[in-house]
Amino acid sequence: MISRAKARELVDGKRFQQFIIVVIVLNALTLGLETSHAVVGQIGGLLHAADRIALAIFVMELGLRLYAYGWRFFRDPWNVFDLIIVGIALVPATGEFSVLRALRVLRVLRLVSMVPSMRRVVNGLLAAVPGMASIATLLVLVIYVAAVMATKLFGVEDPENFGSLGKTLFTLFQTMTGEAWPEIARGVMKDHPYAWIFFVVYILVVSFAVLNLFIAVIVNGMEKEVTDDLRRDEAQHAAEQAASDKVLLEEIRALRREVAELRGSNDRRDPDPV
Amino acid sequence: MISRAKARELVDGKRFQQFIIVVIVLNALTLGLETSHAVVGQIGGLLHAADRIALAIFVMELGLRLYAYGWRFFRDPWNVFDLIIVGIALVPATGEFSVLRALRVLRVLRLVSMVPSMRRVVNGLLAAVPGMASIATLLVLVIYVAAVMATKLFGVEDPENFGSLGKTLFTLFQTMTGEAWPEIARGVMKDHPYAWIFFVVYILVVSFAVLNLFIAVIVNGMEKEVTDDLRRDEAQHAAEQAASDKVLLEEIRALRREVAELRGSNDRRDPDPV
Amino acid sequence: MISRAKARELVDGKRFQQFIIVVIVLNALTLGLETSHAVVGQIGGLLHAADRIALAIFVMELGLRLYAYGWRFFRDPWNVFDLIIVGIALVPATGEFSVLRALRVLRVLRLVSMVPSMRRVVNGLLAAVPGMASIATLLVLVIYVAAVMATKLFGVEDPENFGSLGKTLFTLFQTMTGEAWPEIARGVMKDHPYAWIFFVVYILVVSFAVLNLFIAVIVNGMEKEVTDDLRRDEAQHAAEQAASDKVLLEEIRALRREVAELRGSNDRRDPDPV
Amino acid sequence: MISRAKARELVDGKRFQQFIIVVIVLNALTLGLETSHAVVGQIGGLLHAADRIALAIFVMELGLRLYAYGWRFFRDPWNVFDLIIVGIALVPATGEFSVLRALRVLRVLRLVSMVPSMRRVVNGLLAAVPGMASIATLLVLVIYVAAVMATKLFGVEDPENFGSLGKTLFTLFQTMTGEAWPEIARGVMKDHPYAWIFFVVYILVVSFAVLNLFIAVIVNGMEKEVTDDLRRDEAQHAAEQAASDKVLLEEIRALRREVAELRGSNDRRDPDPV
Repeated sequence: MISRAKARELVDGKRFQQFIIVVIVLNALTLGLETSHAVVGQIGGLLHAADRIALAIFVMELGLRLYAYGWRFFRDPWNVFDLIIVGIALVPATGEFSVLRALRVLRVLRLVSMVPSMRRVVNGLLAAVPGMASIATLLVLVIYVAAVMATKLFGVEDPENFGSLGKTLFTLFQTMTGEAWPEIARGVMKDHPYAWIFFVVYILVVSFAVLNLFIAVIVNGMEKEVTDDLRRDEAQHAAEQAASDKVLLEEIRALRREVAELRGSNDRRDPDPV
Repeated sequence: MISRAKARELVDGKRFQQFIIVVIVLNALTLGLETSHAVVGQIGGLLHAADRIALAIFVMELGLRLYAYGWRFFRDPWNVFDLIIVGIALVPATGEFSVLRALRVLRVLRLVSMVPSMRRVVNGLLAAVPGMASIATLLVLVIYVAAVMATKLFGVEDPENFGSLGKTLFTLFQTMTGEAWPEIARGVMKDHPYAWIFFVVYILVVSFAVLNLFIAVIVNGMEKEVTDDLRRDEAQHAAEQAASDKVLLEEIRALRREVAELRGSNDRRDPDPV
Repeated sequence: MISRAKARELVDGKRFQQFIIVVIVLNALTLGLETSHAVVGQIGGLLHAADRIALAIFVMELGLRLYAYGWRFFRDPWNVFDLIIVGIALVPATGEFSVLRALRVLRVLRLVSMVPSMRRVVNGLLAAVPGMASIATLLVLVIYVAAVMATKLFGVEDPENFGSLGKTLFTLFQTMTGEAWPEIARGVMKDHPYAWIFFVVYILVVSFAVLNLFIAVIVNGMEKEVTDDLRRDEAQHAAEQAASDKVLLEEIRALRREVAELRGSNDRRDPDPV
Repeated sequence: MISRAKARELVDGKRFQQFIIVVIVLNALTLGLETSHAVVGQIGGLLHAADRIALAIFVMELGLRLYAYGWRFFRDPWNVFDLIIVGIALVPATGEFSVLRALRVLRVLRLVSMVPSMRRVVNGLLAAVPGMASIATLLVLVIYVAAVMATKLFGVEDPENFGSLGKTLFTLFQTMTGEAWPEIARGVMKDHPYAWIFFVVYILVVSFAVLNLFIAVIVNGMEKEVTDDLRRDEAQHAAEQAASDKVLLEEIRALRREVAELRGSNDRRDPDPV
């Protein structure tokens, strides 16, 4: 049994992390090859074994990290991410859980948590999310209201697209991505000639909201990159200016001392002026 | 009967506003459930009653606010918004007004007027509108001119898409969203081989106008966020600089006073120089 | 006969310009109404007469402006625009020129040349064009090369979309707007399994070029609005700083004069020091 | 045989480069005309001859440049680009290489390497690529994971779109361009009612990643253009400020010298003060 300190040294070592990255990449390839019936027919057993081995390595690695860091392991959200991703693969994927078998490929996303530069990119992307929250809430509210309205208005005539709240939400999401909405609108307009008002207003409002969602992300990105550059420049100029002012101040103070001395010598020569 | 001051205190109270928000959210849920035939079959009466109660609460709330603020109630555009939204539900939605029943769900948008952070977001979005006005007017003008032209050119051959000014406007709006235009263009090009000129020019001009509409919004957003940050920095540097200059000035003035004293003592010693 | 100066005063007068704007708007309405068969059946003669009158007013207005300004009339590109737009309506629109009848509606665009705020917007949009020129040229070059290549590769198997250089250019423009390309690609891929390489590369390259075209416009818009604001701020701070420095300089110079006087009085008292 | 220096002078000469540009443009036209069966039927032999001559000129030009610069020729990536582009045309385009015949039109892209302004634009575009690398890698990873997952989940029911990893990748690329995805999603949802979760999550994640890819390019463009302008302004102000400070400093130093002289004259008059 190794000590916790040794375990920590091991899991934080560069060699160990590079080994895990290699295992992830190889596992990504075997998972990709598993989708081909031809390949599975030939070397299916090999691929399955490789997948098992990769999973075993991940479980051991996480176990080691858990042992090394104890409860502090859960403080890093990336560790929790790794744990869930690997945990999915351990749930027996039979019966109603058969969809979990497909989710096993999420393991490849561990590449993000293992490669520091990828981690930084994702952290950067997530940093933009809070700035989008309020407009996203508004957008969800608008879509919900539009969905209830459209289900009530068009549900009877076009049950395929507007038959239930769920169907309408999907149709409106599709309309938001700008896809195939004219067909749906023209279909509805046969029964409701003024339905174009709903579609045009919905598209304009949602486009405007999405545009502002984008701007929130852009502004966030700009603030980080562009203004940081300008600020650095400005701070440097300010520092140079302050240095230049300090020189001036010192010169003036030196002068004052000299004038004071001058006055001192005058006063000494001239003790009782009045 | 309570006094106006008491009423004002009540409607502006945090508890009261939180209660109204809860009612809006619950009402949003019942309105959503009402779209499901299965749910209405089971608890339709309950949902209807809940809707009536929510409406009654909103009417009482607005009545209280009207009493509390009198005519000043109408100065806040959000109050007018609330009044219209709730008012729609009071119009008997029968016969030709049956569409109003669907508009009742707009009540859920009261969430925006009640939650201060949502209100700020919407105010922010609306603040971008004036900056878009002139390009939007130009866009409308271009679409109108293109619609008259297309109706005259293609109306006979493709009456479904270009049969009347209204139909053409819808088709051109659809083309502006980049949806299904090639089918329409290819259809028209069978009769008018040079119709592609119209479509290509229209798409390029409208895309360019829409792009500039977006830029107007982006620039507006940037001015608010990015430049405000930079300005704050710059203003701080300017203030620091001014403070530093003030120190210099005070030093120089102190020096002048000292030199003046020096001259004074010299003059006293030397009353008639010439 | 009025003098040129009088004519100039008339055409530049606010009243006269407002009258022309009213005529343009009314003419826009009659041109719109002319697209409706029902309306033309009832008041077709009236609409036609109104159109003739509007045209006559425009011809007289332009004649007056030409008389008033002489050759200098042609120096303003907006005047040339007006002349061409109105000139189109005077060409007899029969036989092969029947398309010109539809172009008459372009007259409505005179609204842009008459309303100063619209003129400014269009000038602003056109100001972004030179900055787009080099990327637009590159884009045209890429599309031309892709079109020649696609016509050679897919022309035999899919003559409808790639049968001639013209057809391919239209198909690629359609692909650039992201519309209905998968159908075309899947059709071609039946004969050329590797055709997806062409489509994916083309879409990625063209999207990247178009994105950079947009950025050129955005950067242009930003430079105008955002940096102008920041520059104005900075210029003001610089001016304040310069003013502050001037005060310092004056103080120091005043001090030097005083010290000089001091020395003068000393020297007078002490004529031959050495 | 001419000397290397002479050859270098020739290939770098303005006349020579303009001649090559003319040849490229003419070759672009003949390559375009070659796509028309009617034109090839009439002057096919002429076009073919012109193409051969243009190719011969390019080969000679590159040979001359190779001779003039020797191994240093390969240091400029644009030279390597020219060499590959021209080299393609020399490979016998028969049998399995018949696709190379279509690639000959890539020669027209030599216009980019020959015209300095185009070269600068492409260099500018390529300069944005490194900033996109990390997000692009993430995007590729996400698409790969989604493709493996979708092939496993939907491959049996919708073999046309999700039958193999390659087909799924194409379908997901198409979905990323926002094209015709609702049809595919609705088809899959007949067997997998919850498939909408996959499509909605995929579209949101990919849209967000693509948006951030765009922002990386925009920020790069902004940093170059906007901040450079502001920096130039700021640097100028800083320089003006430094100049103004220098004047102040000189004034103060002159004053100090004068006060020092004053003290000197006082001291001379008053040799032993204490």
